[in-house]
Amino acid sequence: MSILFDRITLIGIGLIGSSIARDIKELCLAGELVISTRSEATLQRAEELGLGDRYVTSAAEAVKDADLIIVSVPVGSSGAVAEQIAPNLKAGAILTDVGSTKASVMAQMAPHVPEGVHFIPGHPLAGTEKSGPDAGFAGLFKGRWCIFTPLPDTDPVALGRLRGFWDALGSRIDEMDPQHHDKVLAIVSHLPHIIAYNIVGTADDLETVTESEVIKYSASGFRDFTRLAASDPTMWRDVCLHNKDAILEMLARFSEDLASLQRAIRWGEGDKLFELFSRTRTIRRSIVEAGQDVDAPDFGRHALDPKA
Amino acid sequence: MSILFDRITLIGIGLIGSSIARDIKELCLAGELVISTRSEATLQRAEELGLGDRYVTSAAEAVKDADLIIVSVPVGSSGAVAEQIAPNLKAGAILTDVGSTKASVMAQMAPHVPEGVHFIPGHPLAGTEKSGPDAGFAGLFKGRWCIFTPLPDTDPVALGRLRGFWDALGSRIDEMDPQHHDKVLAIVSHLPHIIAYNIVGTADDLETVTESEVIKYSASGFRDFTRLAASDPTMWRDVCLHNKDAILEMLARFSEDLASLQRAIRWGEGDKLFELFSRTRTIRRSIVEAGQDVDAPDFGRHALDPKA
Repeated sequence: MSILFDRITLIGIGLIGSSIARDIKELCLAGELVISTRSEATLQRAEELGLGDRYVTSAAEAVKDADLIIVSVPVGSSGAVAEQIAPNLKAGAILTDVGSTKASVMAQMAPHVPEGVHFIPGHPLAGTEKSGPDAGFAGLFKGRWCIFTPLPDTDPVALGRLRGFWDALGSRIDEMDPQHHDKVLAIVSHLPHIIAYNIVGTADDLETVTESEVIKYSASGFRDFTRLAASDPTMWRDVCLHNKDAILEMLARFSEDLASLQRAIRWGEGDKLFELFSRTRTIRRSIVEAGQDVDAPDFGRHALDPKA
Repeated sequence: MSILFDRITLIGIGLIGSSIARDIKELCLAGELVISTRSEATLQRAEELGLGDRYVTSAAEAVKDADLIIVSVPVGSSGAVAEQIAPNLKAGAILTDVGSTKASVMAQMAPHVPEGVHFIPGHPLAGTEKSGPDAGFAGLFKGRWCIFTPLPDTDPVALGRLRGFWDALGSRIDEMDPQHHDKVLAIVSHLPHIIAYNIVGTADDLETVTESEVIKYSASGFRDFTRLAASDPTMWRDVCLHNKDAILEMLARFSEDLASLQRAIRWGEGDKLFELFSRTRTIRRSIVEAGQDVDAPDFGRHALDPKA
């Protein structure tokens, strides 16, 4: 591939930031790649891993003369980062982010962005339950969606350049308004994570079943939840705090449905249970057909298990 | 391996039954393997797949002169099967099952079991979200737990022979009382399935987010739940109806915890969220260390995805 931006600055070098860095390097998309993160230790680790060309603790320093700036920090820190870097952003630069909530990030960042800088909020729907610069890998975004929530007056040329960047990483690109993004993500991502954290917490607190029993017999269903519940706590605390309304709406729906299911179990309403349990099967099939999950039973884990 | 039983009869030839059949054949554990299932079509499919030596629609016929009988039907049908086969069970035979609930299955089957027949309830903790005779495979039970809930007067020699059988299939074996089994399974298996069915149902019913959006963006967390929610509806209806008390107890705990988490989100209690989200990480690590899940990020799916 050819160079798409003379200088790219990445602020934050966790799972997402470091995966972007690896892709940029591998595909030679930047003339120079500058990496910045607050933590000295993380920055040093990024340098040891050879993720960039230059390593800078100060975000304000790091963005000087950058053509593309990608902010990959927990969403609660977006405003502070925008405030720090704003004075040094050059005219014509593109500023984007990867945050899981969009209305809050836009409200936090937009007021700081100087005129002449193209702020285009984005969200690549990719990741694993691991975190930190060691967890990233090239190719993370291949075949995954990247959603932009552009402001109404966004420059189409700048948007086109940013689309080209994510396209180079192999992403499929969508656009929607930030409020809709936040509702969609609340159901496909935020609620699943919250439910997973909750059930793992419940299991951890039981008196009648020991934690070692839960661990020992987890392959019968429970372990599927533990993957999401192993995700980065800071990131998910911030998501909960910054997409509160949509999450509370989805939680209310979920709880209402669960109360009805609980009632069906209590009163032995077999037909009602059968109807729900049949309906949900179809969705799995559609997800596999849409290429959004593997077709192998048990997520293909059996084949990967050395003990199997 | 050598022949462990002269004649084994399998009643029910779904995912579990047909996996047992494949192992018996592959390891030559039976002098003769008789397969029985109510449905003519399923029995024919079992024959096409060459799963046994003899195929019989009538369970009562099938058990004649069998030394080991394994009942692998939805737990709600256990009583009816026991009643049908009881008159033809030979003295000294071992009768076992694979049901996911144990107190109910024992209450349904035990009254029908004639004196001299060794009834030893069992539950192999293995399976995938697929069902039917085509979904089974040899090696399904390797490294997985099989839990026996023997009656107090169980003949130790018969129990030893049944343990030997599951040991040959590669299972690790445990024993516990049926009430404790039902509580343990309620948290590690039944609650996770019910929660998964419920969230997939909730997502399916939303007006503000379309089903196609849910499918399209499912890789951001939601898809992890759809696997469990694609499990056999008949099996899971029966589990809900036959382990009601333990399931309702776990559901109550889960809902209580969820209400508290919901409150923490509403009131912006970041520390509380962070504490829960950190605690759950440890359990994932223990599960991987106990060999109950793969160590690969994202269940290793990324490596399996042809588009990645």
